[in-house]
Amino acid sequence: MAEEKLPTRNENYSEWYNQLILRAELADYAPVRGCMVVRPYGWSLWENIQQTLDRRFKETGHTNAAFPLFIPMSFLEKEKEHVEGFSPELAVVTIGGGEKLEEPLVVRPTSETIIGTMYAKWIKSYRDLPVLINQWGNVVRWEMRTRLFLRTLEFYWQEGHTAHATAEEAEEETRRMLGVYTDFAVNEAAVPVIPGRKSNTEKFAGAARSYTIEAMMGDTRALQAGTSHNLGQNFAKAFEIRFLDQANELQYCWTTSWGLSTRFIGAIIMTHGDDQGLLLPPRLAPIQAVIVPICRNDAERALVMPVVEKVRQQLAAFRIKVDDRTEVTPGFKFNDWELRGVPLRIEIGPKDVEKGSVVLARRDIPGKEGKRFASQDQLAAQVGALLDEIQANMLERARAFRDAHIFEPKDYADLKDIVQNGWALAWWCGSAECEAHIKDETRATTRCIPLDQPGGSGRCIYCGEPASEKVYFARAY
Amino acid sequence: MAEEKLPTRNENYSEWYNQLILRAELADYAPVRGCMVVRPYGWSLWENIQQTLDRRFKETGHTNAAFPLFIPMSFLEKEKEHVEGFSPELAVVTIGGGEKLEEPLVVRPTSETIIGTMYAKWIKSYRDLPVLINQWGNVVRWEMRTRLFLRTLEFYWQEGHTAHATAEEAEEETRRMLGVYTDFAVNEAAVPVIPGRKSNTEKFAGAARSYTIEAMMGDTRALQAGTSHNLGQNFAKAFEIRFLDQANELQYCWTTSWGLSTRFIGAIIMTHGDDQGLLLPPRLAPIQAVIVPICRNDAERALVMPVVEKVRQQLAAFRIKVDDRTEVTPGFKFNDWELRGVPLRIEIGPKDVEKGSVVLARRDIPGKEGKRFASQDQLAAQVGALLDEIQANMLERARAFRDAHIFEPKDYADLKDIVQNGWALAWWCGSAECEAHIKDETRATTRCIPLDQPGGSGRCIYCGEPASEKVYFARAY
Repeated sequence: MAEEKLPTRNENYSEWYNQLILRAELADYAPVRGCMVVRPYGWSLWENIQQTLDRRFKETGHTNAAFPLFIPMSFLEKEKEHVEGFSPELAVVTIGGGEKLEEPLVVRPTSETIIGTMYAKWIKSYRDLPVLINQWGNVVRWEMRTRLFLRTLEFYWQEGHTAHATAEEAEEETRRMLGVYTDFAVNEAAVPVIPGRKSNTEKFAGAARSYTIEAMMGDTRALQAGTSHNLGQNFAKAFEIRFLDQANELQYCWTTSWGLSTRFIGAIIMTHGDDQGLLLPPRLAPIQAVIVPICRNDAERALVMPVVEKVRQQLAAFRIKVDDRTEVTPGFKFNDWELRGVPLRIEIGPKDVEKGSVVLARRDIPGKEGKRFASQDQLAAQVGALLDEIQANMLERARAFRDAHIFEPKDYADLKDIVQNGWALAWWCGSAECEAHIKDETRATTRCIPLDQPGGSGRCIYCGEPASEKVYFARAY
Repeated sequence: MAEEKLPTRNENYSEWYNQLILRAELADYAPVRGCMVVRPYGWSLWENIQQTLDRRFKETGHTNAAFPLFIPMSFLEKEKEHVEGFSPELAVVTIGGGEKLEEPLVVRPTSETIIGTMYAKWIKSYRDLPVLINQWGNVVRWEMRTRLFLRTLEFYWQEGHTAHATAEEAEEETRRMLGVYTDFAVNEAAVPVIPGRKSNTEKFAGAARSYTIEAMMGDTRALQAGTSHNLGQNFAKAFEIRFLDQANELQYCWTTSWGLSTRFIGAIIMTHGDDQGLLLPPRLAPIQAVIVPICRNDAERALVMPVVEKVRQQLAAFRIKVDDRTEVTPGFKFNDWELRGVPLRIEIGPKDVEKGSVVLARRDIPGKEGKRFASQDQLAAQVGALLDEIQANMLERARAFRDAHIFEPKDYADLKDIVQNGWALAWWCGSAECEAHIKDETRATTRCIPLDQPGGSGRCIYCGEPASEKVYFARAY
């Protein structure tokens, strides 16, 4: 419950973010360094994200399974880039059942190695391919600087792991799942992400090629919101994942992995939140509409509550909350649910009872402009349409904000200026040196080489050498 | 796929169980001692269990949340019985990010301590009560002797944790959730469990009172299939979970916890499985009916497959699999799906195409007796009715088996005999000494003091002292 006002985003974006999460009761700090507790309101949002992603995974032929939390240290060491990437971040179990373990067990930071080991055992023939498995679970990365949702020691995610007979199929799968993430982000979360390829420097440890969806937050910083990796034959060779092809020859598989985590909740908060608090997209919101009875005394209450109940029943197809607390005022409730980002508020007072009306107040349009009377008749249809309108407006607004903060720099000086408060879309020669110089000098990294390229060619924004692709540079979370 | 025959249950019950799980691809051994991989078929069964339980939890007012995997060692030590119970089974993280940790972190064996810490922070007033939270997740107990699903180092479960203002409400909640488990077991899994109270010896470490649902496996051994604990004020006092009551006095809360795990999959296997393999209750089965086209050549295939597709579409409301493999025979497929426990098989051959019929073969009734022709018209209604019949028959059969193996012993010699191949329901004085003697001498433990008591009183089956309650003695998993 909001007693004090939130800091505004301009005052302190970072404090606005932290306070908002705590006050909206999305999450809390755990008594273990860098860990979070996802509270019921936040977890319910995650459950909605899970449901809608899981449906898409199943529609594209994937099934879920569960692989162990613990991975023998030696497994990680089998893929050289992988272990180099992850070893600084590992949590290690050295004692089990009171005894020192012979081989320490790593708490999974990601599961390519343990899943690769099982795939090597299960896959025999081309008839067993493709293997299309996803896992919902928790992973641990020992991060030093943590932020709620954005970067926590333990986080929740899904990780898809697939094995294929050909390089083409693996690339197709990698791109298909990038497409699934993009579709989810845009159409469910109203987060207008930009899909693209990661530079070699920024790709997953052990991948041949990584793709990402990048989102622009309310302070214009970029957030990597989901990734899909073509692992080539790197893990297949490290773990001996092989199959007999139709000519009865032994071949290495081509594998992929792709993941999206509770970090995405951070993306939703920072894409849509405002100085009043959170704003959740109707399709994912745990509460799509809150009904607030307006009554000053018991007599009014007796009048209003039966109508509240009738309206609640009419709206049974939606996720509805009735706030019938008597110890706080309607005004307090309005602020409370605005802070928590409920997209629609339905007010019902004695006059509404008289007139057969309700007041609908949109969270995305503050004040009088977002309020209107509606008849109690056919309220479900009206509410449904209004939620769709809010969803569309949120996407539109986020897209306009994003597009207003993307610039094509004339030269490197211009790029330096742009990344102070926006993204720079610029030609880049592809060299890690230019990328490193730009990072050192501006703190902006390459976010992605967007799939949607202008064609043609230009000159690298840093070194002036010929360049065939444009890339986004931005400061990132 | 089943190439060799399973061992029969009589030959070797334990090997039958292990082989069945591996061959039906429910789970596999992980390359980490005592851990399992739950494969897609097994996980899909667990997802169905989760869904039906989760619905019941939400209907009774609970919401989900997520608490950290890691618990500081010192937290466990705050509740004396709890740490004594769990300390031999702990996995301990001592290294994080390459550094030795100041305080080791335990991988949660259960979450009372970490959740208690958060409840102490969140709960201020009677208005905050009750707190009704559940968590779906993984926990780790360092078991020495492990069995797939029944006892693994890491397992998957849900753990509910609630806090209440009064002792009565806590007891009511504990019993309500025992009721939810009983209802789930009987009506979804067709496992006729017996709900009851655990003896003091058998109760949860730190509980005031534990309840359990006990199931009888196909070898008559008992399996504890879910538990619900009234924790009294033990954890509230250890973790300072307090609230201001309506008189503005500070009071300790009364808390409960309750859990059901992937162990329940073991209960389903051993309640319903037979020498042909698994038999899954239709309400939970990942595949409710498999359609097997019967065709000897391409001409027959061209005739049959369009009808198969039409039937599949008619049955869209069910979980259907079409087995259109061409590299194996129909007979092979029959065995394969029987092994995997699919409750209903639908055969479609050229003659069926001609006659507008299909063959329906029940998994619960082997051979000709379980087979019948059905018209392709209104097939969905027929399949729905048949699945209900199979579900009912499975429960009936399991109940008959259970009741045929429960006996009331005349005397202690009789009890010794009964527990060789059944459960003994006997008067017991309640003393831990009698319980320990019986366990030492027969390997049978007290399973539960059933809620359903005959009334009156009798003499303890062991010591002959007056006894007011009957208890089940049985050998257990």
